[in-house]
Amino acid sequence: MRLPELRRDFLRNTWTIFSEERRRRPSEYKFLKTSESLFDPFLPGNENCTPAEVFAFRPPDTAPNTPGWTVRVVPNRYPALRIEGKPEGRAQGIYDCMDGLGAHEVVVETPQDKPLEECSLEQISQVLNAWKQRILDLTKDPRFQYISIFKNQGPLAGATLHHPHSQIMALPVVPEIIERMCQNAVRYYQWKQRHWFRDLLYQEEKDNKRIVYENNSFFVICPYSSRFLFETTIYPKRLCASYETCTTYEIDQLADAMKAILLRLNATLENPSYNINLLNAPLYVIRDNSPNATLVRDCWCWHIEIIPRLGPLAGFELGTGIYINTVFPEEAAHQLRNVHLS
Amino acid sequence: MRLPELRRDFLRNTWTIFSEERRRRPSEYKFLKTSESLFDPFLPGNENCTPAEVFAFRPPDTAPNTPGWTVRVVPNRYPALRIEGKPEGRAQGIYDCMDGLGAHEVVVETPQDKPLEECSLEQISQVLNAWKQRILDLTKDPRFQYISIFKNQGPLAGATLHHPHSQIMALPVVPEIIERMCQNAVRYYQWKQRHWFRDLLYQEEKDNKRIVYENNSFFVICPYSSRFLFETTIYPKRLCASYETCTTYEIDQLADAMKAILLRLNATLENPSYNINLLNAPLYVIRDNSPNATLVRDCWCWHIEIIPRLGPLAGFELGTGIYINTVFPEEAAHQLRNVHLS
Repeated sequence: MRLPELRRDFLRNTWTIFSEERRRRPSEYKFLKTSESLFDPFLPGNENCTPAEVFAFRPPDTAPNTPGWTVRVVPNRYPALRIEGKPEGRAQGIYDCMDGLGAHEVVVETPQDKPLEECSLEQISQVLNAWKQRILDLTKDPRFQYISIFKNQGPLAGATLHHPHSQIMALPVVPEIIERMCQNAVRYYQWKQRHWFRDLLYQEEKDNKRIVYENNSFFVICPYSSRFLFETTIYPKRLCASYETCTTYEIDQLADAMKAILLRLNATLENPSYNINLLNAPLYVIRDNSPNATLVRDCWCWHIEIIPRLGPLAGFELGTGIYINTVFPEEAAHQLRNVHLS
Repeated sequence: MRLPELRRDFLRNTWTIFSEERRRRPSEYKFLKTSESLFDPFLPGNENCTPAEVFAFRPPDTAPNTPGWTVRVVPNRYPALRIEGKPEGRAQGIYDCMDGLGAHEVVVETPQDKPLEECSLEQISQVLNAWKQRILDLTKDPRFQYISIFKNQGPLAGATLHHPHSQIMALPVVPEIIERMCQNAVRYYQWKQRHWFRDLLYQEEKDNKRIVYENNSFFVICPYSSRFLFETTIYPKRLCASYETCTTYEIDQLADAMKAILLRLNATLENPSYNINLLNAPLYVIRDNSPNATLVRDCWCWHIEIIPRLGPLAGFELGTGIYINTVFPEEAAHQLRNVHLS
């Protein structure tokens, strides 16, 4: 088996991760057909079916890799990236490549195979806290430049295991789209002397047409230019570049906001597949005091996108990056706001 | 029903098209279940079930919108964009929007409901020629800035009708990704005084590991940084910014290349869903003689991406724009080359 490798798409300035190891995991399609009968490696008692845990919330009298945990983080058994390697690019003729260096972890969100949004607020807080702890730990490795946290729920969102879990990828590069978003936030600030995220929240409060939910620390908003039907974004009221600065109180509030929006999506769209993406700051923001790092630290704000997946992306979206959406966010927000949760 | 609208994602610098009209079309999911029994509006005899044709290859003794055609182009019955409107942006508070101006057409590729790749080379040439004729016609409208041509084949690629068809979208904006790719090609030229596409073909011939097929006018290559399993790109040997400059001979050669690769994909992946995307030059390249337009005209080369769709995009891809691929392009090309077509 070839070692994993990152290769650059020169014209797009993006990267592809090549990982033959990922090929060994259960295929999406087999899984769709036989999910009921498949073995669940994330249930308590099956701890030896995953690599050894790197983090867990568990009672102090229980041993690692035994039952008793409430949230458990393990290396992915089919990692796209490996912890060995140097974060240095090299040429292959006119092309650029890099060792497939990184970390790829799985957050088992609950001992039972039960959707995250149906769990208690305490349980959801623990998951969000596990994200924070893993970011703090992985950030110590200076070879990593960005940490992506995401969740695939349901077959249309790319999930291959039914048991609720999220995933953490530490990357040796900053994704082009994240860097572009950061630089556009900086450009806005340099032009207006105001923060994009501050202006956005002010605009949304003033319009009051796209806000779905609000608590003490967060807004949940259907974005003005939503790419996907019923897409929502969670914005913190305390603007801050990096997620891992969240206080315990804020994480509890985030759990509340996340549960509120996920239950509303389930009620409105009949338990859709969905993705959750944390859009966090590049790690140079907290390591570096260059003028650019300082500007991004001041202008960026972490946020979370929740994307219902009602159908596949088609050729137009793949070819142009322009999305077609059939529901205006004002209508989506209206429907989501009006859900009565029992 | 609200009129269609383009809205800008400020941080990503991309656009979303909002179109309530698209909501009326047959849903992907209903279709998946009942496709066999559904009415086919693209069959000869059903011409009155589509808007009136804007182009067709048909014998001179047949009337428009009657049977006899071999390829037929009609406006999309559920258009994402409308021909009425001004190509001017306006502010909505801090946000930018624009009338949903554009054209959205369907190319019915063959009278029978039979996959394009199983048609004769003459039939495929007619389809590719129809693309060219529509680009030449739509380019005359100075409000359009980019013409996207794409094909969704199969449910995992976003097709909602089984009968083979491609789609044409004329847009009032240049997609961010196209502009970025053009600018990176220009940057390469300014740095090296060589053309990226020329260097790429030279490298591929020298490496001779990722070429799947070659004829007099085209290479079919598994790209070095393929985002999707068994992805291929068709590059013309005569580098040229705009597809519509293809000669009759080149279009025949392109039909040959396209048929060759699609049959190989079908044999290797058991008739997968796939997307085809034409990545053409922005229209300013042929209208404008500014230094930037001249540079892009000199440095860009149209090409066609063929993307098998074996599973949904997951949260990681949506959040980072980085793709995970489990098959190196060298191996994909090896497998595709070794297909024996009867």
